[in-house]
Amino acid sequence: MHQAISRFIDQLLPREHPRPEIELLYRMMRDYPERGGKMLRGTLVLLSARAHGGRDEHALPLAAALELFQNWVLIHDDIEDDSEERRGRPALHREHGVPLAINAGDALHIYMWQTVLQAGVPGAAEEFLRTIHRTAEGQHVDLGWVEHGRWDLNEADYLEMVQLKTAHYTVVSPLRLGALAAGLEPDPRFLEAGLALGAAFQIRDDILNLTAEGSAYGKEVAGDLLEGKRTLMLLRWLESARADQRDFFLEVMSRPRSEKRLEEIERILRWLLASDAVRYADERARFEAARGLELLEAALESAPDREAVGQIMGTLRQLATRDH
Amino acid sequence: MHQAISRFIDQLLPREHPRPEIELLYRMMRDYPERGGKMLRGTLVLLSARAHGGRDEHALPLAAALELFQNWVLIHDDIEDDSEERRGRPALHREHGVPLAINAGDALHIYMWQTVLQAGVPGAAEEFLRTIHRTAEGQHVDLGWVEHGRWDLNEADYLEMVQLKTAHYTVVSPLRLGALAAGLEPDPRFLEAGLALGAAFQIRDDILNLTAEGSAYGKEVAGDLLEGKRTLMLLRWLESARADQRDFFLEVMSRPRSEKRLEEIERILRWLLASDAVRYADERARFEAARGLELLEAALESAPDREAVGQIMGTLRQLATRDH
Repeated sequence: MHQAISRFIDQLLPREHPRPEIELLYRMMRDYPERGGKMLRGTLVLLSARAHGGRDEHALPLAAALELFQNWVLIHDDIEDDSEERRGRPALHREHGVPLAINAGDALHIYMWQTVLQAGVPGAAEEFLRTIHRTAEGQHVDLGWVEHGRWDLNEADYLEMVQLKTAHYTVVSPLRLGALAAGLEPDPRFLEAGLALGAAFQIRDDILNLTAEGSAYGKEVAGDLLEGKRTLMLLRWLESARADQRDFFLEVMSRPRSEKRLEEIERILRWLLASDAVRYADERARFEAARGLELLEAALESAPDREAVGQIMGTLRQLATRDH
Repeated sequence: MHQAISRFIDQLLPREHPRPEIELLYRMMRDYPERGGKMLRGTLVLLSARAHGGRDEHALPLAAALELFQNWVLIHDDIEDDSEERRGRPALHREHGVPLAINAGDALHIYMWQTVLQAGVPGAAEEFLRTIHRTAEGQHVDLGWVEHGRWDLNEADYLEMVQLKTAHYTVVSPLRLGALAAGLEPDPRFLEAGLALGAAFQIRDDILNLTAEGSAYGKEVAGDLLEGKRTLMLLRWLESARADQRDFFLEVMSRPRSEKRLEEIERILRWLLASDAVRYADERARFEAARGLELLEAALESAPDREAVGQIMGTLRQLATRDH
């Protein structure tokens, strides 16, 4: 499935143009897709279509379009977060500068719409509108907390943000798009199931950013901390942190990324890892994962292709509970 | 017409949300549209629909969508050029920071597609795809010349760039969208006419940026020069500039904007204004304007609403020949 989606994207994106400058734009548009992500969302679209008795050729354009969405969003996210790397190479704006990278993201965005519209699947364009509205709102909330130095946040704030930012386009939409590609009305339970599973996925992603092998002392130490991302662990830790640690943390976080020192980040990371924050977040992720999987199992109970249902459940279980 | 488009946009953009953070996003999306631009492109859509015997209510959503296009593109352009002001106030990214502004542009982009799709005018979505592809390519060429320090460019390079960047969405598409809203196949001559008129418009815009009242010594002195924009005047002047002036110019242009000094820009501006460059560009703009108007007049010869045809011709003549 991964290969079929890659091939589809390769064929739909332009490559040649009489002007070499414009060929550079085309190479920039192809760059992130060709770096080879997991294509998780596109694969889920195909699996959901199969589960509903739909055909791959109807679902493939929507799977490709959702991957194009992921890729243009990543180009812009990497600028917004000033990320250094993406999939093991420098982020696009670090290779070509911010102006060309913003524009390449916009150009790729248009190819996403071209793909959605050419698919001609009833309801699919509305689904893309709905899910991108929510993603942009979630991204705004996340970025706004950083921009405005907000730390007066609780668990419900965090969950609402990640559901908007991540869960819709990562889980809810793939499930719904697969049903639409099969000519069916999506089960309404996909929404709640997808929000729970998407939240579990994002919490686990945040945990791995802090604890994954090699991150503790390497150059990429806790990128989320450097970027000042609000995570469930941080909010939990802040609730009961010692006053001096909390003050130190807030002072470091009030500075721009380039003025945060590595030893300061490592110090905060040690406090965080010594607290119950990671265990707490891990439990919360497990709870959301279990709830989401249970809801989803019920929603897919009557789906005809049981093998595809099994693959969906397996993929999402792995995603929402992964520890590496 | 201006008011009808404004009202339509006001009603289609969201305003209220339980989360105050998301209301800020909505305010950011409304900001540029509410600053009150000329709504030139939307007005041309309505006039073209009328000229073709179409009804305003069919054309209004497309007029609004084209204005939304202009507004999300301006948000991103202002970041790409690091512009200081837009319509008399600070650019959006200077008020809210780059991350939130990139995301607000993306959010507005989605409302543009929502408007296009809800209009349900056959061929309109394809027209938006076509014109945004070209605009993004032109923007890439323009930004790439700055990013890569390219000055080995001639008049044909400049014309191709501005036709891509400006002419499609400013003239070609409004004419075509109006015909589509009236249920007609657009006249193929709109393309060549629109490219000529759009080029004339951009050349005049570039001239005004250098010569408009108040720009010579104020803070906004020749913004295009500060941003290193390649204009027809600069390319013409460079062709026959004295070697020492040329070397000085290239050295200043090789520095980032923040390291260009005002007196250096003023010195270059004096050389430029003392050369034949502005007169040459002015003649070129007049030539393109005359050619475009002649082609357009022929293309609209059998359009039924002669008053609307007269307004289109008047609007585009003014636009392509304005000197203030």
